[in-house]
Formats: sequence, C-alpha cells, structure tokens
Amino acid sequence: MSDKTTLGRLAERGVEDMEEIHAILDQGLVCHVAYITDGRPVVLPMLYARDGHRVLLHGSNSMGLARAVRAGSSLSVAVTHLDGLVVARSAFNSSANYRSVVIHGIGELLEGTERAKALDVLIDRLIPGRLSDIRASTRTEIRQTSVIALSLDEVSAKAREGGPNDEESDLDSGTWAGVLPFFTVVGEPLPSHDLRPGIGVPDYLRSYRR
Amino acid sequence: MSDKTTLGRLAERGVEDMEEIHAILDQGLVCHVAYITDGRPVVLPMLYARDGHRVLLHGSNSMGLARAVRAGSSLSVAVTHLDGLVVARSAFNSSANYRSVVIHGIGELLEGTERAKALDVLIDRLIPGRLSDIRASTRTEIRQTSVIALSLDEVSAKAREGGPNDEESDLDSGTWAGVLPFFTVVGEPLPSHDLRPGIGVPDYLRSYRR
Repeated sequence: MSDKTTLGRLAERGVEDMEEIHAILDQGLVCHVAYITDGRPVVLPMLYARDGHRVLLHGSNSMGLARAVRAGSSLSVAVTHLDGLVVARSAFNSSANYRSVVIHGIGELLEGTERAKALDVLIDRLIPGRLSDIRASTRTEIRQTSVIALSLDEVSAKAREGGPNDEESDLDSGTWAGVLPFFTVVGEPLPSHDLRPGIGVPDYLRSYRR
Repeated sequence: MSDKTTLGRLAERGVEDMEEIHAILDQGLVCHVAYITDGRPVVLPMLYARDGHRVLLHGSNSMGLARAVRAGSSLSVAVTHLDGLVVARSAFNSSANYRSVVIHGIGELLEGTERAKALDVLIDRLIPGRLSDIRASTRTEIRQTSVIALSLDEVSAKAREGGPNDEESDLDSGTWAGVLPFFTVVGEPLPSHDLRPGIGVPDYLRSYRR
C-alpha cells in the first residue's frame, strides 16, 4: 500500500487538505505507533482520538512506549482505512483502495489535569455520548493511565480510490476487473453478563457509526 | 490497546499458540511496518500475506523501507483486528477487544525467481482464486516490484475478548455496560468502467470473506 508503482499510478494521491486528514483520523479508533527502543523499531496498536491539532494516544505508565517518549524517542503514528481491494487484470496492477495518515513527532506525556481532560476527550471521541453516562475517573485511575499527545504539525496522508489502471493490452483478456469494497460495520451491542435488569442500550450506542 | 491496566486485566491474554497466531495473520490484508531511517522511526501500511513461517510484505524498489532493509534496519510489523469496543461503567475499565500480532526481525529483500514466486503467493492469499484468472507477471513488472520476507521466529501476540471488568462498586451505577462489536464486511464487487460486456463476477470474488 506504500507502493506508488503497483497501487494505481494515476489514482493514488497525496492528501494535502487538513480537513480531509482530520476526517481520516476521526474515522479511526486504532492507530499504530512506532518508536525506537534499544536501537530497534517497535510498532504497536493503540486506541487514539484526535483533539484539534493533535492526537491523543492511550497508554499505560509501565509501557515501553512511555519510557521511549521520556527518553526522547520520536514517534511515527499511522492510521489506515482499507476501503477495498483493486482487482486488476494483472498482478502488477492489483492493489488496494485506502486512506492513510502518518504523523511524525515528539510525543508529550500529559500530566495532572491535562491528563484528566485528555482521558475525557478520548472517551468522548471513542464512544460519543458515553462520558455523561459514567462517573468521573478517580485520581488513582488517572495516575494509572497515561496519555501521550502528538501534534499534527508533521503529518502526511495518502489515498487511493477508484478502479484498476490496467495496461491497454490487458483490457481484452476476458477476465473480470473492478473493486472489492470493504466496510467496517458495528453490530448490535452485547450486554455484559452482570448487567442489571431493566437497563436498555443507550441511543448513542444503538446509533454508533464509524 | 497496549495497556494491560485499562484493557481488562483479566480478559487480556498473551497468545502463545502458533496456529492462533497464523489465524490472526491470515485474516488480515494490511500490516503496519516500522523501520528506522536517519535515526527516526517510520511506520507505514502495507499489503502482506503469510507464507508458512514468514510474512511477505509488498513494496516498491524506490521505497525508504527497501533502503532501510538494505541498510540492515530491523523491522517491526503489526497486524491488528479490532473486534469491538468494551463499554465499561467507568472510563478506566473501558477498552477494546482485539487480536494483534507483532513480528520483529531483519527483513530479506527477495530477488529473481524467489520474488516472482512470492508475488504469486501474495496474489493468491490476498485474492484466493485470482491467480489462475490473470496472466503471468512480466520480467519488467517483477523487476519493478519488491517483496520483503520476514520470518515469524520472533513473534508475539495478544488478544482481548469478552465483556468489561468493572469495579464491584460500579455494578449498580445504573448505566448500560457491554461490548459494541465491529466487523469487516466485504461488499458487492464493483466492475471497472472499462469492463468488457458479458464478463460476470467470478465465484471467488462473490464468495470473498475475511
């Protein structure tokens, strides 16, 4: 998916518009964060949310990532949506439709009230409407969680959409060509085994979309 | 999602079974690859496929990744499936259900017939059934593509499933708790604008599942 040659030369494009970059970020829940530890790259999935001109990464104090951020390692964070497989008439022109944002920078470990506010933003973005339905986090809980903020100052995005770009000489090959679209679907909310009787699914979960 | 504290202490588990690791890898299409360039981490999405005890990453000769692999940078590759959001009675216990594999190691840039074979494996895994419907890649096409192989020797996996692990004291809070499940759905194949009349969608695309 990072291959300009095989991903449809004409249809792939760099995304410059910050609103479009925000939209790609706002659709996702999981990012992949890369950092360096002991001279080696490490990548791991994390929940995240965009908060204005930055993303908030949800982590734990004990993590290697927090250590790496404290040690000054820069981060690289990617959010990717796979929208479809491009089924071309040759392997070479087969590719994927996608939207992807990559952010680089030095992460900041949030502390105190900054961290508490960021945790609220995370919940509010991951599950809009939830925040007013749950109690406030305790000081101990906030202390046991960590949040890393990363600015969108250094951000790039790419996207591919549309059908295959086949070679002229392949068009009469007699094989089907097109796109196999992928969607993320949210299913019916599943109640916890210890849910008390009479508590219905709230509207914000019933209408949850991504 | 990398946070043992907030992701449901009891339900999260390390995955040791290699068959389960294979199954996680085989369900995915896109991985996130981290490498080091100029002392900074870089992460980017790529199409991949598992081939026995290794993964094949589909790239391009011109990529920074290929250069980094040539320069001896080790890689870290993650494949993550988000299965749901765990909607707990507190922000602290809210988390995600997921399955994730992370692979570390030195990648190998495949050459010659090794590369040609690997490209066939990639197509066959990404779109099973497709290989016999398309022409062989030309030497030029194979030369213009690159494939990186990475062994599964150094692999780890984690997963979380099940409902929220709420504090005993939160169980009577009166708010709904449970899981919002996520699925990836494959839509109806969309024909290319230049598809010749009379060519129907092949069965392997009609029945495509991930």
